[in-house]
Amino acid sequence: MVEAFMQEAVEMAIENVRAGRGGPFAALVVKDGEIVARGTNLVTSSQDPTAHAEVVAIRRACRSLNTFQLDDCDLYTSCEPCPMCLGAIYWARLHRVFYAGTREDAAAAGFDDHFIYDEIALSPADRHITMIPLMRDEAQRAFDAWTNHEGRIEY
Amino acid sequence: MVEAFMQEAVEMAIENVRAGRGGPFAALVVKDGEIVARGTNLVTSSQDPTAHAEVVAIRRACRSLNTFQLDDCDLYTSCEPCPMCLGAIYWARLHRVFYAGTREDAAAAGFDDHFIYDEIALSPADRHITMIPLMRDEAQRAFDAWTNHEGRIEY
Repeated sequence: MVEAFMQEAVEMAIENVRAGRGGPFAALVVKDGEIVARGTNLVTSSQDPTAHAEVVAIRRACRSLNTFQLDDCDLYTSCEPCPMCLGAIYWARLHRVFYAGTREDAAAAGFDDHFIYDEIALSPADRHITMIPLMRDEAQRAFDAWTNHEGRIEY
Repeated sequence: MVEAFMQEAVEMAIENVRAGRGGPFAALVVKDGEIVARGTNLVTSSQDPTAHAEVVAIRRACRSLNTFQLDDCDLYTSCEPCPMCLGAIYWARLHRVFYAGTREDAAAAGFDDHFIYDEIALSPADRHITMIPLMRDEAQRAFDAWTNHEGRIEY
């Protein structure tokens, strides 16, 4: 069963390259043994740097299931998720993640996430992208608005 | 100038809470001193766990500028980006990031990214979300398809 889902993810990744839609990556979201959403890398064709296969599949699964939480779903991805996709996986609270290629395989094909892993672990002031703190006190007003908003929906 | 952009981000974050669209977060993408895109947190209202303010603003900026790279743009965000948004910032290659609230301020308001920072730094086998390697050799076919695809657009 798990092998059949992963085989489908890999075939989708290959087809994605042949069709010129983006990088060699695909992902499936599965609930109760059924595929509820499919995604492939659409970065270049949709001009969206966040359109990695996992993010696309998570967005579609949420739309399909009418929820912003996927805690009863598994993700099958043709390659180990990058830090952005890992963040998305945690926010969506997926149950399990199956992956085929590793970050080392991806790096060998020109997709090197290593730099991003390293940068995330640094404090903002030490990163290669300049990050500048500004008006921290003002931001507290937004958090206060949230804390005081009785109708807030937590996520 | 930078203060005016940040003030606008904070006001948008407050309005986002009042309108019931999602969490107390907003972001702007600025190019050559002009705002090219705005985003607020839409996780609950759009049922998309990836719809953080920064991701929404990056997607809209790319659509508006017809590109998947924002290396000549700055991002103003009402709060320090979470790991998912940081990943998106690196993939979009933004020039600079200005942020108001800190991750500690966010945690005090119930938005704790600390767990995700910790998880990303672990190897897949050690994470709280079960991550299972499967059919690594098969995934190599997708990378080979990419390497052999002459029309590939790198990103």
